[in-house]
Amino acid sequence: MSHYSRRDFLKQLGVGAAAWPAAGHAFAARPPQEPDPGTKPLGYAVVGIGSLAKGEILPALRTTKRSRLVALVSGDPAKARHYARLYGSPEKNIYNYENYDQMASNPEIDVVYIVLPNSMHAEYTIRAAKAGKHVLCEKPMATTVKDAEEMVAVCRQARKRLMVAYRLHYEPYNLAAMKMCREEELGQIKMIDAEFGFVIGDPAQWRLKHAMAGGGSLMDIGIYCLQAARYLTGEEPASVYAEQWSSDPVKFKEVEENFSFMLRFPSGVIANCYSSYGINYVDHYRVGGSEGWLEMEPAYVYSDLVQRVYKDGKITATTPSTWDQFAAEMDAFSEAIQQDRDVATPGEEGVRDMRILMACYESARTGKVIRLI
Amino acid sequence: MSHYSRRDFLKQLGVGAAAWPAAGHAFAARPPQEPDPGTKPLGYAVVGIGSLAKGEILPALRTTKRSRLVALVSGDPAKARHYARLYGSPEKNIYNYENYDQMASNPEIDVVYIVLPNSMHAEYTIRAAKAGKHVLCEKPMATTVKDAEEMVAVCRQARKRLMVAYRLHYEPYNLAAMKMCREEELGQIKMIDAEFGFVIGDPAQWRLKHAMAGGGSLMDIGIYCLQAARYLTGEEPASVYAEQWSSDPVKFKEVEENFSFMLRFPSGVIANCYSSYGINYVDHYRVGGSEGWLEMEPAYVYSDLVQRVYKDGKITATTPSTWDQFAAEMDAFSEAIQQDRDVATPGEEGVRDMRILMACYESARTGKVIRLI
Repeated sequence: MSHYSRRDFLKQLGVGAAAWPAAGHAFAARPPQEPDPGTKPLGYAVVGIGSLAKGEILPALRTTKRSRLVALVSGDPAKARHYARLYGSPEKNIYNYENYDQMASNPEIDVVYIVLPNSMHAEYTIRAAKAGKHVLCEKPMATTVKDAEEMVAVCRQARKRLMVAYRLHYEPYNLAAMKMCREEELGQIKMIDAEFGFVIGDPAQWRLKHAMAGGGSLMDIGIYCLQAARYLTGEEPASVYAEQWSSDPVKFKEVEENFSFMLRFPSGVIANCYSSYGINYVDHYRVGGSEGWLEMEPAYVYSDLVQRVYKDGKITATTPSTWDQFAAEMDAFSEAIQQDRDVATPGEEGVRDMRILMACYESARTGKVIRLI
Repeated sequence: MSHYSRRDFLKQLGVGAAAWPAAGHAFAARPPQEPDPGTKPLGYAVVGIGSLAKGEILPALRTTKRSRLVALVSGDPAKARHYARLYGSPEKNIYNYENYDQMASNPEIDVVYIVLPNSMHAEYTIRAAKAGKHVLCEKPMATTVKDAEEMVAVCRQARKRLMVAYRLHYEPYNLAAMKMCREEELGQIKMIDAEFGFVIGDPAQWRLKHAMAGGGSLMDIGIYCLQAARYLTGEEPASVYAEQWSSDPVKFKEVEENFSFMLRFPSGVIANCYSSYGINYVDHYRVGGSEGWLEMEPAYVYSDLVQRVYKDGKITATTPSTWDQFAAEMDAFSEAIQQDRDVATPGEEGVRDMRILMACYESARTGKVIRLI
């Protein structure tokens, strides 16, 4: 990795397109590699046809190299038929939540991608694994630690892979940020601040129902700040202190609008994190080291991410990213399955987050620091 | 995130300079106004000829309209003579720390500006007030709450004004930020994050000695983040939780390198703040509201401050500031004295900060949330 110079890297980043340096990186997380000719793409069943599936995942499956859409699962047959036609998925491979387990007898389906409300992740992950399918599950992987642990245990027992859809682990700018931190290109890391907010719309949506979401802005988007703090330091937090508040007691009757948490890592590094369902276009993190800092803004959205690095007295900025994060994520999972390699974000990674998220809520509830390790 | 139009957002990031609206702000804190012809400038004695005096304050006194340098106080007579000549201050008006009180009989001196290490602020403020002079004191105003309270009491008793040198209360971009928040131009305020860091040099300097500085990065620069959180919300914090750590136990034997604190305001707003003596060029705050956000970067340094506002789907950025903050601060104090008006940052404002800073340290020491009101 010694030949990996920041200058060359930023030059590459400046190119704009997905000109990610291809070789020589002994780094766990990475964008997927081009398949060898003749490698058969894995068949994906997409479970749930909500805005994320329609807006991002189904379109991404048109560009994937190692993954292709072969099935849809929905409670609405007409909607499923419409999207099956639109994306060229066979109509015979439409399932619903009752006959879901019959996917077991469909050899076209290798992977099931769970794009359901949080509270349904556990059940449909477990049923998919029992049907003999690998599972890619959206974040947060569950609404309780117990569910998350069970998901991991069942997939292990079924000898099926479980990956949590933490797409930024397959996104070049965030990967570059992790790498710069690990290789101490910013010197010793001292601080991280991470913020993510958007104004949530429709008050009737499942994200605002505790039973379906498991929590509010922390579960949905604060998890990105937690992830950033963890993947930038490469450490597990030793403790957390948190506070929460909501400005509108009607809209946020069941889940929190705003959540602030302070993570302490064993090295000493403190990360200040904040999530909100009440502010728009705050999508940022910065990691400060003794030799410079790196920031991403936007840091977490689906595209147009920008990285700025301050070092040696000057700031260098990348062009906005243009690659498809969902395509990269799915192909990375497919590649790991095809090549029998570990994924960067297995179920166990999701369980770690779930434990911390629950400790965050415990801290906010009790007003006390919660020790994690 | 469905309404999140990233493309428009990013397009605006590219936008360059925009002029800041100059007038029409009916706000308590304000830059000083031009004096009427014939208004006699007040005479300033600058106490302590360290880097801040040499680099900023003495040069600023060349451009002030309501304030002029008339005396210097230093323990080093040769140095004092040199700077008296350089800045055209009469050599007869050179004082030292022994004959300091003799300023009482010098009618040329109206104001004493204390630019000494923190631990000396109380003594020299009190002696100046007793000598019948108004006092402008650098921040933090003291190293203990008791000292700060005594400074206020003595100045009040002597019927002399005491102003803490919080120059950002006289700086147009920060004033505009306060005004936008007060007038809810960003909607309801939800979050603030504020960070300030620089790599501290000479390990022998007074800032690293607890007896002289009263604390580390929090006292010196974290105070700017605290100030920002207070002047942006216009509220007093209800509670604070804090953690600190230092990466180098030798260099930071007496005072902390890194300090993180979470302030909770009565409205609910949470501010995440961070100060560091171990990272460079982190000088930033952002306030996020329901209708947009405002950020300053740099936010706290002496010049070239930049303000960016996100609202109505676009980001507007100012040109880097060019005005002299120290000149504005001194002239604002002189104007308040000349016109018998309140200053925006009287001693009482400094006392409020001192109480919060001490609560921050108490929280970091005990691991507990400290209630403030």
